[in-house]
Amino acid sequence: MTISQAIRKTVDAVRLTVADLHAELPRNGLVVWTAGNISARVPDSELLVIKPSGVSYDDLTADQMVVTDLHGSVVEGSNVPSSDTAAHAYVYRHMADVGGVVHTHSTYACAWSALGIPVPCVLTMMADEFGGAIPNGPYAPIGDDSIGRGIVETLRSSRSTAVLMQNHGPFTIGRSAMAAVKSAVMCEAVCRAVYLIRQMGEPIPMAQTEIDALYDRYQHAYGQR
Amino acid sequence: MTISQAIRKTVDAVRLTVADLHAELPRNGLVVWTAGNISARVPDSELLVIKPSGVSYDDLTADQMVVTDLHGSVVEGSNVPSSDTAAHAYVYRHMADVGGVVHTHSTYACAWSALGIPVPCVLTMMADEFGGAIPNGPYAPIGDDSIGRGIVETLRSSRSTAVLMQNHGPFTIGRSAMAAVKSAVMCEAVCRAVYLIRQMGEPIPMAQTEIDALYDRYQHAYGQR
Amino acid sequence: MTISQAIRKTVDAVRLTVADLHAELPRNGLVVWTAGNISARVPDSELLVIKPSGVSYDDLTADQMVVTDLHGSVVEGSNVPSSDTAAHAYVYRHMADVGGVVHTHSTYACAWSALGIPVPCVLTMMADEFGGAIPNGPYAPIGDDSIGRGIVETLRSSRSTAVLMQNHGPFTIGRSAMAAVKSAVMCEAVCRAVYLIRQMGEPIPMAQTEIDALYDRYQHAYGQR
Amino acid sequence: MTISQAIRKTVDAVRLTVADLHAELPRNGLVVWTAGNISARVPDSELLVIKPSGVSYDDLTADQMVVTDLHGSVVEGSNVPSSDTAAHAYVYRHMADVGGVVHTHSTYACAWSALGIPVPCVLTMMADEFGGAIPNGPYAPIGDDSIGRGIVETLRSSRSTAVLMQNHGPFTIGRSAMAAVKSAVMCEAVCRAVYLIRQMGEPIPMAQTEIDALYDRYQHAYGQR
Repeated sequence: MTISQAIRKTVDAVRLTVADLHAELPRNGLVVWTAGNISARVPDSELLVIKPSGVSYDDLTADQMVVTDLHGSVVEGSNVPSSDTAAHAYVYRHMADVGGVVHTHSTYACAWSALGIPVPCVLTMMADEFGGAIPNGPYAPIGDDSIGRGIVETLRSSRSTAVLMQNHGPFTIGRSAMAAVKSAVMCEAVCRAVYLIRQMGEPIPMAQTEIDALYDRYQHAYGQR
Repeated sequence: MTISQAIRKTVDAVRLTVADLHAELPRNGLVVWTAGNISARVPDSELLVIKPSGVSYDDLTADQMVVTDLHGSVVEGSNVPSSDTAAHAYVYRHMADVGGVVHTHSTYACAWSALGIPVPCVLTMMADEFGGAIPNGPYAPIGDDSIGRGIVETLRSSRSTAVLMQNHGPFTIGRSAMAAVKSAVMCEAVCRAVYLIRQMGEPIPMAQTEIDALYDRYQHAYGQR
Repeated sequence: MTISQAIRKTVDAVRLTVADLHAELPRNGLVVWTAGNISARVPDSELLVIKPSGVSYDDLTADQMVVTDLHGSVVEGSNVPSSDTAAHAYVYRHMADVGGVVHTHSTYACAWSALGIPVPCVLTMMADEFGGAIPNGPYAPIGDDSIGRGIVETLRSSRSTAVLMQNHGPFTIGRSAMAAVKSAVMCEAVCRAVYLIRQMGEPIPMAQTEIDALYDRYQHAYGQR
Repeated sequence: MTISQAIRKTVDAVRLTVADLHAELPRNGLVVWTAGNISARVPDSELLVIKPSGVSYDDLTADQMVVTDLHGSVVEGSNVPSSDTAAHAYVYRHMADVGGVVHTHSTYACAWSALGIPVPCVLTMMADEFGGAIPNGPYAPIGDDSIGRGIVETLRSSRSTAVLMQNHGPFTIGRSAMAAVKSAVMCEAVCRAVYLIRQMGEPIPMAQTEIDALYDRYQHAYGQR
């Protein structure tokens, strides 16, 4: 597969967006060293742009990003793509509305993932962003479609844009890469807050009708038009 | 309502103050992404200046701020105001001494808010700033006067300038926006310290007379004249 | 009292040192807003230099520092000195070897202070710096010599350069202001580490002979000559 | 021993590498004040380069580094070398594949070290980097070969590149100084995550075959060629 002239500019723009968004991961304390990765779907194509494997966050320019097809085969770029590329690609193949995927090993989300219990929705900011609990995905070995399948199967039946893959960590999705990054940031924030709540005692539960009202308002009335 | 020439300069000054103060929220670790908001009353007017809804902290210039009346209707500005504007406006309408209001989702304050128990006053810095426990406000749905009413009813009967709204997070008030920001910073600091104390065991209680003496001194003798 | 020509240069140098050292407190996460203060004794004089009360860390230039005598009366400077000046002055009057004093409300140290139990010495870095447990001082009201007396009485009978004043927070001393700042930094680090240890279970105790050996070596063989 | 012309350039390059890598320790929150140290073996020689004792991280230029032989005797440099030099040297003498050694007092690793229990492998990122649990080393007094011997004896029988020396803290090794720094960063990250897991409850265990598969893949297929 080659990149046609028709989408050359789009690919370059997505390369830049994905490179720049990576700065949000260390800035928000979601990653150490070279862990974590962000990808974006290239609109009107069968392509995605993703971080190279094991490269320092200090060196993530647009040039370093890798373009692959939606099965994770490299189409452009001299770097090896992220070792999580197959999982990202699986998500794009099976969820047409997803424009961005983020994976981190953020600490509190990892902790919940190793317990294998969902993060209960007991804060309005969690209702706003996730519309309920953050669910757990299965344990999935690396190297085949297991991780991607686990993400898709879990998130298809949830309003949440974040899933905690067992003993592994969070994957988040969004209509855009920026939205997926936001979900990753909010996921760690609520995993941390609900950890603290759990250490202190029993939280006051939130009614499902309240959660629904908050989620609906936030998805439709928050932010600029 | 329009902005008269008489208060043009005042409005512009308040815009700048409110924009600049927003930098203190991420700097002090009180917010992630676009969460949180600060407002200030415009002196000698029926106006307030507040953060726009869902705009990045990187982009909060004076121009981006929104001017509304004390019922939250936009008077000046092309942005949609914060979705918490009604709550801020309610506070200004009902508490004449309040010049600034701050809302965050700071982590430890949120944790206490979900437990629905007040933060006991067991540190001198807490007696200094809050004059006693930090109280809990009710659960209040978004979209009517509930949040504002909950804040006002709770803080009217307290020396505290901070209230933890149930399952939601802290709102703080002050004579100025700067004072309300200080309260938000101190609120998170003491919520974190008393969380740690509670995890370790039973704190040594402070006598009410000691709390009163500390509060009185701090309010009157601390700082520059 | 006036500042003689003989010590003019010394006073100005100490002003600069104390102003610059204040940057270490926010840098090391020991303070929020205007909390905390550092002082230094002016050599060959009955003077000390201390932070002004309630001034932002962004504005702490040498000019803003206040010179007082060893009873806390202002000798030079247009600012009101720190509200903890009496405590600092008391320490200098009663401990001739002390050249610097630091007070913070660092979070983990405050937490231990509210429990009223000493921080046990279970890490080599704690033996190095403090030579044993970090002791508790009494609860001491503000406004007379109580705090200073509590610090001196506690630290005179301890190798520790840090004391946790009950329900208040840490005060640290050193031969120089820099050494007292180092003690404040290390105090918070070990209060945090031993908090975590305590949450996990029972630490392996360290033998007093080991603590003595580490302390002796660190005080005499660590660092540059 | 003197430095021959043949390795002059190599020594200078290692000095620069070691100096620069030290910036990663405060940047990743692994050290306070002057704690912690990094060394690197000088290839094709019996030399190592290490941090000077008790010097601020602000001042760690290549010139400040100290060159010693593999028994810790200074060969070049006007500074006193790190007080942990003997331990580093012991490791280089006994583990031919080791090109770098790092020691920190990072908080969560110190906490586990005082409990004297290994950090169980319950996260994929831990399996990737350490291939299993992070083991404990013995308590070892300073001043003879005890620390070095404890490190070598523990790590020789482990896939882990990190060891938690009892009541002391982590030492990490790597084929290069950079790899040892990465291990130190990952060690603290997993000590923190597994601390949180332990506070919440019982983690879901990972099968040894899964750990082996993850470790093998990460060691051979992660990163750029």
